Order: sequence, then C-alpha cells, then structure tokens
Amino acid sequence: MDNSFTCFDRNKHIYTNDEQIDELLKDILRFFNGTPVQPLPPTEKFVGAGCYALYYTGKVNPEYNILYELNRTEYRIPIYVGKAVPSGWRQSRISESSDGAELYNRLRDHYKSISNSCNLDISNFACRFTIFEGKSVGMIASVEAKLIETYMPLWNSCIDGFGNHDPGSGRYAQAVSEWDSLHQGRPWVKKLTGDKPSRDLIIIKIEEYLEELKRRFK
Amino acid sequence: MDNSFTCFDRNKHIYTNDEQIDELLKDILRFFNGTPVQPLPPTEKFVGAGCYALYYTGKVNPEYNILYELNRTEYRIPIYVGKAVPSGWRQSRISESSDGAELYNRLRDHYKSISNSCNLDISNFACRFTIFEGKSVGMIASVEAKLIETYMPLWNSCIDGFGNHDPGSGRYAQAVSEWDSLHQGRPWVKKLTGDKPSRDLIIIKIEEYLEELKRRFK
Repeated sequence: MDNSFTCFDRNKHIYTNDEQIDELLKDILRFFNGTPVQPLPPTEKFVGAGCYALYYTGKVNPEYNILYELNRTEYRIPIYVGKAVPSGWRQSRISESSDGAELYNRLRDHYKSISNSCNLDISNFACRFTIFEGKSVGMIASVEAKLIETYMPLWNSCIDGFGNHDPGSGRYAQAVSEWDSLHQGRPWVKKLTGDKPSRDLIIIKIEEYLEELKRRFK
Repeated sequence: MDNSFTCFDRNKHIYTNDEQIDELLKDILRFFNGTPVQPLPPTEKFVGAGCYALYYTGKVNPEYNILYELNRTEYRIPIYVGKAVPSGWRQSRISESSDGAELYNRLRDHYKSISNSCNLDISNFACRFTIFEGKSVGMIASVEAKLIETYMPLWNSCIDGFGNHDPGSGRYAQAVSEWDSLHQGRPWVKKLTGDKPSRDLIIIKIEEYLEELKRRFK
C-alpha cells in the first residue's frame, strides 16, 4: 500500500470516555478494599494473577510510625502496591515454566525480601490482593496504577528498589537502591559494586513524605 | 492493629466484571483502528501519552513479506505495539524534566532505531496512535496489552529487543537482542559484550511465526 498520509490533527487521536473508565476503576478499587486481609505470604498457595497491596502495621520502625498511625483501626494506606500478570502475557506468549501462581509467588518474593532484611519484622506486615481472570486480566496494569495514584505508597512513590530482583551476572556494577540501603540483607545486594545512597538522607526524605501523606489521609 | 486474619478463601479475591471490561476495551480498539495513519515519526511534535502501533508496508525485507501481504489494502497487522505513559506516572511522581510529549518522543526513538538499522527503510513504516488524557490515562497499559493480544505483533510476540534502550555504563555485559542481531546499526549495541543470537535461526523463527499469523488473519 502506498504511504500517503492525511494532515496531522491531534484532536483526531484523543480517546475520551472518562466517565465509564472512572466508574469501572472505582468499582474495582471498592472490591479490592473489601477483600479479606491475609498474612504475608498468604497461608495457602493459590493460582492466579492480579494486584496486591502490602500494609505495614508495626511499631518497630520509627521511620514508619505515621503508617502505623494511619493503619491503626483499619488496613488503609499500603506501604507498597504491585501487580503480577500471567507469565508471558505482556508479549502474548504462553510460558510453559509457569505454575500459574503468579500472584502468590510475587507475594512470596516480597516475604523473602522483608524476612532477609536486618531491621524489618514480617509479622508487622499484611497483604490484600485481587485475582483477575479471563477478560479482566487486561485490567491488572490499570488497577495497579490506580492504587498507586490513590494511595501513593511509600515504597512505590518515595523510596526506590523494593521490587528489584537479582540483576544477574554481568549487571552487578549498579548502585544499591534506597530500599536496600535502608533495609540491608537481601543476599544479592552484597554483589552490587555501585554507589550506596545515604541512609540518613533517605530517612529524612521518608519523614517529609509521610508527614505529607498524613495531611492527605488523616 | 492486631494481625488476626480470616481463613483463606480464594473465591473472595476474584474480581469478575468481564462484560463491562470487554465492552470498554473493544470500544477503545475500534477508536484506535479508526485514527488516521501517520508517517514515522508523525509530521508534528505533539503533547500526550498513549498507545501506538507501527506498521510495516514495504517489500524490501523478504523475511517480512507476509506482513506486506496482510497490510496490502489497509493498515491491519502492526509489526510492533507499545505505550508511552506520562513521566513518573507509574510511581505517581511528577517529573519536571518531561516536555509532556511522551508519545511523540517514543515514536521518535523508534524512528531512530529503524533509521540506524542497516537493512530497514523508514519509508516502509507508518504508525497509528491514540492519546489518553485525564482519567483515561489509567487505561493505557490495558490498551497496549489488548492490542498485543489481538494482533500478536512480530516484534512484541516473536522477536525480542526492538523496544530496548542503551542499558548504560556498567550493564554492557549483556547478550545482543534478536532484533539487534537481525537489524544491526543502533550505536550502543556495539558496546554489548554478551552473546549474539544466530541470524539464520531468527529468520527461520520469523518465517514460521508469520505463516501462523497469516493463517490467523487471512
């Protein structure tokens, strides 16, 4: 076919359907916030992909004290939000190595990160999650984004690195993440040869951020 | 708050609303497929985030001949689908360095990758894109996934690496991607010290994949 193009007109490329989209995302968030809270990791391995939130409910870490206050009577403000899509889904490839337990496996990864840390206690954490199946799988990324936008979780929107994985051989010349500087202990972090951010500066940043979160959600 | 949890019941965590989700995504895809086709990059820089598809319409690359056939009378089967979200959006951070032209900038990156390649001709490519604003921004990731699932674009679902960026210093000990092995020329690829996949094997893989795509879309 010959490439003859029409004149550029930005307006012809804008999709607008805010009302329907907003209604759908709000409905999903209501459902999400109504799902039962589980320990981290949940007590049973289960099949499914979807979105999850981790809640910090402890009094052990002074830097997170505001989160403790905000969550004292209900699980409200997550410290981290994430998603687990079906293996190969983003590329429309079927992965044969997957056991189908993407969401559970991801929560278990987080359990390990927290357990390995020298200054976090896994019993101070809990999680919520929602499984999406069939055509609803397409919404997972949008729901994760909506949750992050709504709650601005500390480990998403302020502190980098919690969701990182072992970068693997040939990629260790990287900086240590803020999360790993603050919560040392993940075994692969020792192999990183790059800079390490200052713990003191991170704590100041967290305190300022949580004061702002408190004003917003009190 | 004390962490006393209810018994695990998977059913309580499943969100089901397939009909509404399916209807919304289909409406967006109809809109997308009705947007005007533009050259790569589009003739004007524009502000906005969203989803895009690249189409190959040439006769120059024998390995892509089936794509030429499928797109002979209309822009139908993209060779690549992607998204550009607002800077900092995923973490709910506002980036001050952004000019707001995420979608255009991403298309320009792709234009450069293709132009740098020794065996692709940019005049054989065209693009479609849809801008999402306001609350609709939340749908960008889901729309990208739906487009990939629907069209299984060759450079998403069969060949790896087209969307890669310069990994940056300290991360060059990586393998060359399939795309970069097939379409040599991006300047940073020369710095990679890892393995390089066999061009011949990639071409066989492409031919098998496109035969399957032809059966599906003819």
